[in-house]
Amino acid sequence: MSIRIVLVGTTHPGNIGAVARAMKNMGLSDLALVDPRYFPHPEATARASGADDILENARVVGRLADAVDDCVFVAGASARSRSIDWPTLNARDAATRALRESRNGNTAALVFGPEKSGLSNEDLDICNALLSIPTNPEFSSLNLAMAVQVVTYEVRSQQGDAIPEVEPDVPPAASGSLEYFFKELEALLQDIGFLQLDNPRLLMRRLRRLFLRAEPDQNEINILNGILSSIERDRTGGKPS
Amino acid sequence: MSIRIVLVGTTHPGNIGAVARAMKNMGLSDLALVDPRYFPHPEATARASGADDILENARVVGRLADAVDDCVFVAGASARSRSIDWPTLNARDAATRALRESRNGNTAALVFGPEKSGLSNEDLDICNALLSIPTNPEFSSLNLAMAVQVVTYEVRSQQGDAIPEVEPDVPPAASGSLEYFFKELEALLQDIGFLQLDNPRLLMRRLRRLFLRAEPDQNEINILNGILSSIERDRTGGKPS
Repeated sequence: MSIRIVLVGTTHPGNIGAVARAMKNMGLSDLALVDPRYFPHPEATARASGADDILENARVVGRLADAVDDCVFVAGASARSRSIDWPTLNARDAATRALRESRNGNTAALVFGPEKSGLSNEDLDICNALLSIPTNPEFSSLNLAMAVQVVTYEVRSQQGDAIPEVEPDVPPAASGSLEYFFKELEALLQDIGFLQLDNPRLLMRRLRRLFLRAEPDQNEINILNGILSSIERDRTGGKPS
Repeated sequence: MSIRIVLVGTTHPGNIGAVARAMKNMGLSDLALVDPRYFPHPEATARASGADDILENARVVGRLADAVDDCVFVAGASARSRSIDWPTLNARDAATRALRESRNGNTAALVFGPEKSGLSNEDLDICNALLSIPTNPEFSSLNLAMAVQVVTYEVRSQQGDAIPEVEPDVPPAASGSLEYFFKELEALLQDIGFLQLDNPRLLMRRLRRLFLRAEPDQNEINILNGILSSIERDRTGGKPS
């Protein structure tokens, strides 16, 4: 199954172990760790309670973008409601979506932030959707491993279900391919002076959100990149910039 | 809500605390402990992470029968398949049933056994049904608090009011407003020669589909139109075209 669990900036190694156990209990095996405070660590191994193979095969990277580069769908767990309204899926629907991608031969990622703070807005910028687990609003902070347990349980419990196939004609664009487009778009907007008009980070965030929500396929990203190149050629008088 | 969590013969006090937190996260408060090895205990309080009220109000009894005396429905968690075939509900269906009893003014109990051994057959004799959480058959032993988390999550997520409606801050863009953007975009793509590269109608159709799928709000359309104006100003050297 191509569903990856990504933990960002985990503080307590015990939680990494508990996540590995939760994943293995539910039949998942692909774990990526972004900048964990301590790893490997004896406490992680102890709490894994036999899911050592998940820990041994975990990929450790420095940035979230590197952990989800090949993923066509990325959902970021978020307890807080955010000022910008992101598309939000509950745990059940996020699992359904991830399973569908997995069945179509793609990889989906479910991303969980640091224990205290949750995912930063910069990390959420990489996500297609927020993942929200329904909780008691007066006591809403789930333990990290508990949150992973709930979401992986949803994956497991829907695994036998017939998920209506929505087979796309064209493969969805991978996260890395979208990041390339965003980089080029930002460069153009700076060149033409548009990004100075306003708060540039906020503006890029809004544009990212718009395009991530549309979940472009690879053809569409190629078209968008083609437009950016044409504009660049046009404004530099046909010379490569 | 009249749904009680009952822990039988719990060995590790930390698990009792983690159960209290999981319950409170999901809006449950009625905890009964049957013959716990250590309780109260500092480790239970630490792991409760603020759900101290659940621990303080927990009822401690000597026998399962006393913990569920007033309950009309009792489900006992069981990982193993039993020699006698009991009626078995998965976590989702057990939660549905417990909620139904609660709404009818009755009390339902969800019962979890000791960490190592699970519920004894004598305890299961008191239950109306087994409660089985779907797991990887090759690694099926869930941590006690994780099992409670999954089941109480099911209760919460079926409660009906689980996910608050996200009311958009900004009105969605009206169709006419999108059409204006598409017209300007098409004009630019013709000016820079991009639309001659390919079948222009097909290309515009693809771009429309991409943006319509994202369902832009009015702010986003304003940003997109601002970008088009900036590109136009830039390429015509600041003169209005």
